[in-house]
Amino acid sequence: MYTVLDTTMRDGAQHNKISFSVEDKLGIAEALEQLDVDFIEYGAPSFDIETKDFENRTKLSPDKLVAFGMTARAGTEPERDEGILKLIAAKGNYVSLVGKSDRRHVEKVLRTDAGEYLNNIRKSVATITKSGKKVIFDAEHFFDGYAYDRDYAMASLEAAAEGGAEILDLCDTNGGSLPTAIRTAVSECKKTFSVTIGIHAHNDAGLATANTLAALEAGAEHVQGTLLGLGERSGNAALSTILPLMKRLGLKDLPGLNLLTPVCRTVAEISNIAIPDSAPYIGAAAFTHKAGLHADGVLKESDTFEFISPESVGNVRRLVLSKQAGRHLVRSKLEGVIPEATEPEILSKVYAALKEREALGYTFEAAEASFYIMAARLSGRKVDFFKTVDYTVIDSSDALSHAKAEISVDGVTVSAKADGNGPVHALDLAMRECMLKFFPAMDSVSLVDYKVRVIDPKSATGARVRVSITSTDGKRTWKTIGVSGNVVHASFIALEDSYRFALNDDFNGLFA
Amino acid sequence: MYTVLDTTMRDGAQHNKISFSVEDKLGIAEALEQLDVDFIEYGAPSFDIETKDFENRTKLSPDKLVAFGMTARAGTEPERDEGILKLIAAKGNYVSLVGKSDRRHVEKVLRTDAGEYLNNIRKSVATITKSGKKVIFDAEHFFDGYAYDRDYAMASLEAAAEGGAEILDLCDTNGGSLPTAIRTAVSECKKTFSVTIGIHAHNDAGLATANTLAALEAGAEHVQGTLLGLGERSGNAALSTILPLMKRLGLKDLPGLNLLTPVCRTVAEISNIAIPDSAPYIGAAAFTHKAGLHADGVLKESDTFEFISPESVGNVRRLVLSKQAGRHLVRSKLEGVIPEATEPEILSKVYAALKEREALGYTFEAAEASFYIMAARLSGRKVDFFKTVDYTVIDSSDALSHAKAEISVDGVTVSAKADGNGPVHALDLAMRECMLKFFPAMDSVSLVDYKVRVIDPKSATGARVRVSITSTDGKRTWKTIGVSGNVVHASFIALEDSYRFALNDDFNGLFA
Repeated sequence: MYTVLDTTMRDGAQHNKISFSVEDKLGIAEALEQLDVDFIEYGAPSFDIETKDFENRTKLSPDKLVAFGMTARAGTEPERDEGILKLIAAKGNYVSLVGKSDRRHVEKVLRTDAGEYLNNIRKSVATITKSGKKVIFDAEHFFDGYAYDRDYAMASLEAAAEGGAEILDLCDTNGGSLPTAIRTAVSECKKTFSVTIGIHAHNDAGLATANTLAALEAGAEHVQGTLLGLGERSGNAALSTILPLMKRLGLKDLPGLNLLTPVCRTVAEISNIAIPDSAPYIGAAAFTHKAGLHADGVLKESDTFEFISPESVGNVRRLVLSKQAGRHLVRSKLEGVIPEATEPEILSKVYAALKEREALGYTFEAAEASFYIMAARLSGRKVDFFKTVDYTVIDSSDALSHAKAEISVDGVTVSAKADGNGPVHALDLAMRECMLKFFPAMDSVSLVDYKVRVIDPKSATGARVRVSITSTDGKRTWKTIGVSGNVVHASFIALEDSYRFALNDDFNGLFA
Repeated sequence: MYTVLDTTMRDGAQHNKISFSVEDKLGIAEALEQLDVDFIEYGAPSFDIETKDFENRTKLSPDKLVAFGMTARAGTEPERDEGILKLIAAKGNYVSLVGKSDRRHVEKVLRTDAGEYLNNIRKSVATITKSGKKVIFDAEHFFDGYAYDRDYAMASLEAAAEGGAEILDLCDTNGGSLPTAIRTAVSECKKTFSVTIGIHAHNDAGLATANTLAALEAGAEHVQGTLLGLGERSGNAALSTILPLMKRLGLKDLPGLNLLTPVCRTVAEISNIAIPDSAPYIGAAAFTHKAGLHADGVLKESDTFEFISPESVGNVRRLVLSKQAGRHLVRSKLEGVIPEATEPEILSKVYAALKEREALGYTFEAAEASFYIMAARLSGRKVDFFKTVDYTVIDSSDALSHAKAEISVDGVTVSAKADGNGPVHALDLAMRECMLKFFPAMDSVSLVDYKVRVIDPKSATGARVRVSITSTDGKRTWKTIGVSGNVVHASFIALEDSYRFALNDDFNGLFA
């Protein structure tokens, strides 16, 4: 039986710029539950003050919960070691106990006698197993240790096995091992020990997935990683990549895999990191086809251009708008929405405008509502249902923003003031208050996401910025974009497009 | 002899949200020159209007330049095919000619007779080689084709070899092949053909590096990829990962590898993408140690915690400030700068303040100047050399920002107004104009980078934002940070810290 351990909350928390609260951990645990992960390593009771609180509040079964800790301090008997006692007192039925398998680390970093340290491993593991808990032995620096002093590395595993460890988890802690080295060492361990062999890979050489796969091919039956590949330096093996691979190899069933993308997005949101668009399986661009030829192929026969369906990992296929997309994709986007824009003359204008705006920093692939407004305007349709006569936003040392907007519709001008906790917030409130006097339906429209990107960071505060806004009216969700040297003005451009979209009946069926 | 081809400008341009101008391409070519890449695929003369202009202006040797194109259109003789003629007229001595190796694609997507298509490959390649150019045959969908109809896939290569192709480049176009499949197919090709076998991997299954390595192990001697892994969907094999691997395996010399990180940053800046902090070798966090235990180990013996030195790939080691960093790292940062802050009582205060601010969204690891100001204040040192009495920034529909600032020093208050092309730009100008009246040395201080990050995007325009500012005085470069619900206020906080740092003689030796 193959098992998977997620250590997002423990090893993942070593990631640059990440720290998890108890609330965060509870949210991550709940998300991971949907993916049929066998073990969840939730923290180190000795270091992380929040682990007790997490234990009290989590609904996870103790059979899934794994507390993390180290072998006893040098010179301390494990039965009296504070760290070990905290592990025994933890709620989970499993303990990950880390010990060093590289003699250099024992001698140079711990500055301990190498033979004595093997006793420490054996006794530390035994103390925990005697208490009734099961032990996963994390053999730190195992592969480097195996290359440097094979016998000592193997002796460290033997000590853990003698102590009663259930899984010997081999760590490529520095992330520099090659798949061939992993295969050799795992094969030998598989032959030597009757307990389960695990693999814990890091991505410093870009080989975390390759090394995990090599270990599985050589007989490992336990995999450790973090869902999004979070972790110190270049991160841990990403379970978002490993899980689909294990399913494909027939090693695990994983009925929840069709939720992979939404679960990853939840964990990313809690972790406050952005999933790279290009992340395999789960990235926004993982099934996004841009090249004319490819997009054409996908439209004809999707399985010739995708080795796995986006639905099977909870993602979606997208064909994007860009100059590479080719005119036929632009045309297919317009069909049914603005039919007259598919005529050659207007289509050429739309395509030219697309290229021109892209050169200015616009990216319509993430702001299709702005694309449709541009196309509607070039087709001679009415898009300007209102005119912004003027706006002003004042920011001052009280950290509040005060906005005033003046908007006219068919010659009638109204104005409104609003305060907000940022210039865009205030401006949106003031503009929408004006708009409401003419269009009561605007009441249901609100902003749900707001992103700022500095486009040419070289010029510092004088740089151009791209603002993307996501709006909803409860039924539809649409994205608009603005680019300017001024962040407030870029936001204003995106806000205007958002309202234009909301007010245009031509777009009723879009993005529902 | 092993050769490497970079296709950032061609296949990389299929990346979501990327498009290259001629200037961009010239800059990328210049950057790649430093890395001893053998071939640079710079575009497709049939599609990209900018290729001619690039050819006229580039200083690259024609032996490095590779133009990209397709086999002749069905029913057209290659000698009269417009695309082929453009390839023959291109400046480079090499041509990448793409042809399909998967019978399904020939029959279902091209809708062409499979036998006829093999003739087309042979004749298209021969037409180009007869003109004196050398051909790299890009066998599109080769591995999927090999799995579906092995004989047809091999026949497509044979046709190209008969036409005189110098390299048979096997493409895993959909990125779904496993290393074992790559190994088998490459081994057979190696036995069958006397010309060079190449590998062109995509990363849809997170296996681009693994598959490139498998191909090299099986006898491939030509590698294609994009420097940063840019490319459609999940991208192409990243040369930034493959080059260090090839050097390590002794396959290539690569004397310029110690420039890898700066070259990648240049290409990222031109491409307008951010290199993920966790990118192997080149990411800002690739050699960043956070965990107390690890950071401690690195301080003692760096080679026990890194399998390659950061200098060898042009990167630097960093030990970061965070609650995980441990008190001893915080202490080591303070030693020599604010010695009294290393005393237990003050150190505890600094450590507690660090944790508290982190919970609010501050990340001092990227803003050490703000950390030192906080520590100096908690140590009772003078840090407030000025007081901002008031500021106001007005943004209006002319897209200009108008700021007013009032600053007092030792009871004397001055004020100044300034316009800027954004609220932060205007505020910085106004505040610095006030400051100059008291501190002439501020004249040499300027902002060089400005970043905005929305911290809790769920709350849209009401979300908190983190502003990071990089400043320089020509000798030192420092980073400060501000967090607030209001982007202008967050910028104000970071600006104040930047000036405080500039004015504080305690920090003279830092960040030089």
